[in-house]
Amino acid sequence: MRNLQVVLASRPSGFPTAENFRIVESGVPQPAAGQVLVRNHWLSLDPYMRMRMNAAKSYAKRAEINEVMIGGTLGEVIASRNPRFEAGEFVTGSLGWQLYALSDGTALRKVDARAAPLSHYLGVLGMPGVTAWMGLLDMARPRAGETVVVSAAAGAVGSVAGQLARIHGCRVVGIAGGAVKCAHVVQELGFDACVDYKAGALREDLERAAPDGVDLDFENVGGEVLDAVLALANPFARVTVCGLVSQYNATEPYAVRNFGSVLVNRIRVQGFIVSDRLEVWPGALHQLAGWYAEGKLKYHETVAHGLESAPRAFIGMLRGENLGKQVVRLGEA
Amino acid sequence: MRNLQVVLASRPSGFPTAENFRIVESGVPQPAAGQVLVRNHWLSLDPYMRMRMNAAKSYAKRAEINEVMIGGTLGEVIASRNPRFEAGEFVTGSLGWQLYALSDGTALRKVDARAAPLSHYLGVLGMPGVTAWMGLLDMARPRAGETVVVSAAAGAVGSVAGQLARIHGCRVVGIAGGAVKCAHVVQELGFDACVDYKAGALREDLERAAPDGVDLDFENVGGEVLDAVLALANPFARVTVCGLVSQYNATEPYAVRNFGSVLVNRIRVQGFIVSDRLEVWPGALHQLAGWYAEGKLKYHETVAHGLESAPRAFIGMLRGENLGKQVVRLGEA
Repeated sequence: MRNLQVVLASRPSGFPTAENFRIVESGVPQPAAGQVLVRNHWLSLDPYMRMRMNAAKSYAKRAEINEVMIGGTLGEVIASRNPRFEAGEFVTGSLGWQLYALSDGTALRKVDARAAPLSHYLGVLGMPGVTAWMGLLDMARPRAGETVVVSAAAGAVGSVAGQLARIHGCRVVGIAGGAVKCAHVVQELGFDACVDYKAGALREDLERAAPDGVDLDFENVGGEVLDAVLALANPFARVTVCGLVSQYNATEPYAVRNFGSVLVNRIRVQGFIVSDRLEVWPGALHQLAGWYAEGKLKYHETVAHGLESAPRAFIGMLRGENLGKQVVRLGEA
Repeated sequence: MRNLQVVLASRPSGFPTAENFRIVESGVPQPAAGQVLVRNHWLSLDPYMRMRMNAAKSYAKRAEINEVMIGGTLGEVIASRNPRFEAGEFVTGSLGWQLYALSDGTALRKVDARAAPLSHYLGVLGMPGVTAWMGLLDMARPRAGETVVVSAAAGAVGSVAGQLARIHGCRVVGIAGGAVKCAHVVQELGFDACVDYKAGALREDLERAAPDGVDLDFENVGGEVLDAVLALANPFARVTVCGLVSQYNATEPYAVRNFGSVLVNRIRVQGFIVSDRLEVWPGALHQLAGWYAEGKLKYHETVAHGLESAPRAFIGMLRGENLGKQVVRLGEA
């Protein structure tokens, strides 16, 4: 029994490449008193990881060279010296890009393997779901009849944010890259409309899709998408800045032209990180699980197979090649 | 007895010029039932007026060609057919760039001529004071020990905002144009430091003046000033966007480069207009009057004389030639 790990080999400039990662083999560690040993079955791949690969200060601990890549995981306890856990229990946490990991249990959450496929606890029933819930319901507070724009609408967070806005009676306009994603967003996820930003007429297409202007923007992308939304914002609009994925691989930041709209329209812009407020997670997860069980939250995944495929899948996700949540199935488990 | 009025002759492109204004003479109107006739003694000149001169949609009614310029005034009731007012009472309102005006009284507020010089009701005890109070105390909510940056620190709103932050125990760093204004801001107004943005090293000078980073930005200027503040923002900083005076005469908007800081530092950016929330004015004015009476709010004015001087004084204010609040004393009253 050997462990496999993906470590950060070098820091990328611009888009990461396979050379920025290295796969290493090691022994499987044994739990000390108070620890559990987890066999990871699923690895979550998320845009925030790209920021952690930079040397620059950001909102969270950066990944270090030769250390295991940071990442959310879903796995099974296979040995426990912690009274809170038993072998055979399924847990989600942030155990990194590796097959086996030790934990003292403090950041592990047990999941119910009968209520949903395990991987869904890395998406709609996990961090991305709570991110959508917090940014939309707790911060932006949509009101029925408002127009809500969600960028990266086919992604793990955007897909949930848009459906939550629909549940709250809003007109929801997605922004996504390409006709396939847009069709998915409208037909599968139930958004009212979706604008393909790759079609070359973002501002005009968005104006057509949001004829009454934009009241609320759940921003995952930034750059030109944000500028288009600011140009169409209504008085007292709210912009929740969840991500700026268009910028993560940019060597020069995109400069925002329509900032003046913040004053003219008295917009509230709020950046947030889901890990800042762990106290709201239980309530959010409870609500999400309820809507999920009622069939009100559709969920789609793109699955890569084997830890070795994680770097390639991660790079593809940053390029928008996935549809829905990108996960990696680890080994045959 | 003749009325003098300044009307909008043409819309400016870039900085206004004298040709955008025209001075006209007319008869003094007589009050109808329910109306009062006011002789204005003081006219307030404020940056927001520049936006009203544009054809574009903004947050408030635009000025129309050949109509009297919009503006705050302090005057004396000289004839009343409204039971709420008597001749001889002093009132502040928005009666425009003219010597005489009619009002139905709904937007007039009586002032106490014994408590302060009349013109102060156009500044620290009026709209600019309430603007500072609302943006700082009601929205950004400073905590003792935080570092607060105030741009246009020597201006009507900035000077009050910074002093309010000092009253609340903050370290206050002003940004102003030129050594004279910076000396005024520190020595007269009691700010902890002031950065001269004309000295050519804004970012570095601001970093030196705010060595612990920026927790709160009361933004009156925008452009490079905003970018410098975003670069130095601390986690959970608040940016209150009260004005963007650097942009009002720009033909191309300045593009904001450091927007990414909003996400990384989970910044809350909030645009606001003081007239949106009239319900907070009485409480704000009461508090301001208290601190003013205690000598805790210093106040400085630049006075132009005669209605004819208003266009020139307004253009000068947009170029930063005034120190403190720019007002116009109308006639010999």
